Amino acid sequence: MKIFKSAILPEGFKANAVACGIKKSKKLDLALIFSQKACKASCKFTSNKITAAPIQVDKCYLANYSLFRAVIVNSGNANCFTGKAGLKDALDTTEFLGRALNIKKENILVASTGIIGRRLKIDKIKTAVPALVAGLSRDGINKVKKAIMTTDTFAKEITVKFKIAGQTISISGVAKGAGMIAPHMATMLSFILTDADITKRALDRALGMCTESSFNCITVDGCMSTNDSVFLLANGAAGNDAIDLNKNFALFVKALMFVCVELAKMIVKDAEGATKFIQIKVSGAKDTAEAKKAALAIANSNLFKCAMFGENPNFGRIAAAVGASGIDVKEKELKIKFSPLNKNEINVSVSLGRGIHSATVYTSDLTPEYIKINAAYN
Amino acid sequence: MKIFKSAILPEGFKANAVACGIKKSKKLDLALIFSQKACKASCKFTSNKITAAPIQVDKCYLANYSLFRAVIVNSGNANCFTGKAGLKDALDTTEFLGRALNIKKENILVASTGIIGRRLKIDKIKTAVPALVAGLSRDGINKVKKAIMTTDTFAKEITVKFKIAGQTISISGVAKGAGMIAPHMATMLSFILTDADITKRALDRALGMCTESSFNCITVDGCMSTNDSVFLLANGAAGNDAIDLNKNFALFVKALMFVCVELAKMIVKDAEGATKFIQIKVSGAKDTAEAKKAALAIANSNLFKCAMFGENPNFGRIAAAVGASGIDVKEKELKIKFSPLNKNEINVSVSLGRGIHSATVYTSDLTPEYIKINAAYN
Repeated sequence: MKIFKSAILPEGFKANAVACGIKKSKKLDLALIFSQKACKASCKFTSNKITAAPIQVDKCYLANYSLFRAVIVNSGNANCFTGKAGLKDALDTTEFLGRALNIKKENILVASTGIIGRRLKIDKIKTAVPALVAGLSRDGINKVKKAIMTTDTFAKEITVKFKIAGQTISISGVAKGAGMIAPHMATMLSFILTDADITKRALDRALGMCTESSFNCITVDGCMSTNDSVFLLANGAAGNDAIDLNKNFALFVKALMFVCVELAKMIVKDAEGATKFIQIKVSGAKDTAEAKKAALAIANSNLFKCAMFGENPNFGRIAAAVGASGIDVKEKELKIKFSPLNKNEINVSVSLGRGIHSATVYTSDLTPEYIKINAAYN
Repeated sequence: MKIFKSAILPEGFKANAVACGIKKSKKLDLALIFSQKACKASCKFTSNKITAAPIQVDKCYLANYSLFRAVIVNSGNANCFTGKAGLKDALDTTEFLGRALNIKKENILVASTGIIGRRLKIDKIKTAVPALVAGLSRDGINKVKKAIMTTDTFAKEITVKFKIAGQTISISGVAKGAGMIAPHMATMLSFILTDADITKRALDRALGMCTESSFNCITVDGCMSTNDSVFLLANGAAGNDAIDLNKNFALFVKALMFVCVELAKMIVKDAEGATKFIQIKVSGAKDTAEAKKAALAIANSNLFKCAMFGENPNFGRIAAAVGASGIDVKEKELKIKFSPLNKNEINVSVSLGRGIHSATVYTSDLTPEYIKINAAYN
């Protein structure tokens, strides 16, 4: 498996982004990823009961259609908590794009990230769509990775290439982080593209497995966004024998897992105000779910996060967080270890002494800068 | 019902506190509340699976004995995560006090608050106990309320008096707050005393009801302590007809509720680094548990708490927190209102549009000062 630290579009994909005027800064804010061949799509959305309008549209399209050609995403406005009007705006976005691309709107997925509770400037999107489509190119992904940024301080991108029976397959991903959208919401969006030929059930299973150990293992502040989405599109342009659950599945999962974990770690490293990247490994659990529960309980403890900011190896706060999670851990079985805290990256190892399973989560410290960013209004 | 803003010991109680040397500051750190008559006792302890040694001792005594004479509490050290040695220290504390008071150790309850994971200086307690007992007095509660303080900036105290069939009954409480014990743990301790004659089952039921709507409705940072405890002692010295579930119970609950809610509010008002006292009322819930779940989800959202610090009426963060709590709320039913945010006290009203039940919780904002306090090490 070859690793590239930049986004390189797999075969058959093009991309572009423009500044349509949603962001006051006039920065890139409308992005498009397009596939010349129809794609199978697998998506994971926030489990928040309040979901943004684009997610509602995507769920509807995914439930009724099986092939997709494009994803359009705007930054600067989350199109969430916007009622029926917001839903119409998300539908219209796919409508305008469908006309420009001469494809059905139901073959287009849509995403938004930014301020919550405000109407999308749909006219600006409508006006910008023709130029967005006209500018599609093989290196347009370098605009997309910037156009999806909000308070992110760096673009998040990764590509891997690997071979199946002599055929090179690419998986490439870009993401925006759980840095909070000034000033309203945290949102994580990831767009992962592959030219692999793969069955729908294998694609779904692979994304499920990889999401559980990557995007679902990161936490910045325990706050769940209304817009979180992971999109995985596979267009089959690599021409490999189709991957299925019993054919080359492990190879595909290994590569996809690498992409997902790297993007997830980048999101944590760019967390708002963070000064530390913290990896928490919990072992000795009865099952993986228990290990993850304990690790997330620690990662979401404000007291623990403050201690990390202060470079304070405070094992008491870890014990309290694990105990509060409801896991029936025994004081004398609980083992806690820290790597040196005066580094940018900290490893915390916790053993529950209850079994043989483990899980790792990634988080950041809690800092005055985080509060400054999130207390600000406009 | 008459309300007094200070602690006034009910009939039959005495108290005292000394500086035994656990706190480096040489401030009061060992406190005793004593009843001349045997008391019925009802207690509520943290649901954290990691519990401090004194709680383990109390649970054992409460399970095996029905009458109590005293509560001893030290501040400056939580005697938690201290293993068998810590358990022996807690038992020894009751042993030393039992000898000095000439009562059984099993008639004594014990509590600790302070740094987690360090052995208690048990010799200092042993040496101090005779003077602690010798100094017992009717106004000693004014020392107790200070001796239990750690990072608290003011003493928390309240007294109510009410009549049952011509007999005056007092309920008086002191508490220490969920200000974090520098630098290790948040702990809430409350000691509530009454001279009411009341059956054990009525006492337990009353404390359960009142705790649910007071101490269990406050949150500073969502971190659950290993030492949280509420002690309620009733010595019957008022000479009233014994209160029972079907006799004057509502009168007693009303008075006890007032005491518990007032102490709980004081704890939130003294939260570390807080600049705002925030009351969150959730109505329109299917049942009270759902209302409380939604209210606590909001109160524990870092994003919401940062917004309150910034005086930013950010309804999106409230919608996201409610949605993330798992309650199946509909966007169009959710109503959110703020009182003016430029005040010290803020009221937030949220209606879920799902039913007729409501609940209120109390919390504080999240501030850079909170992080400063909790990042510090010694």
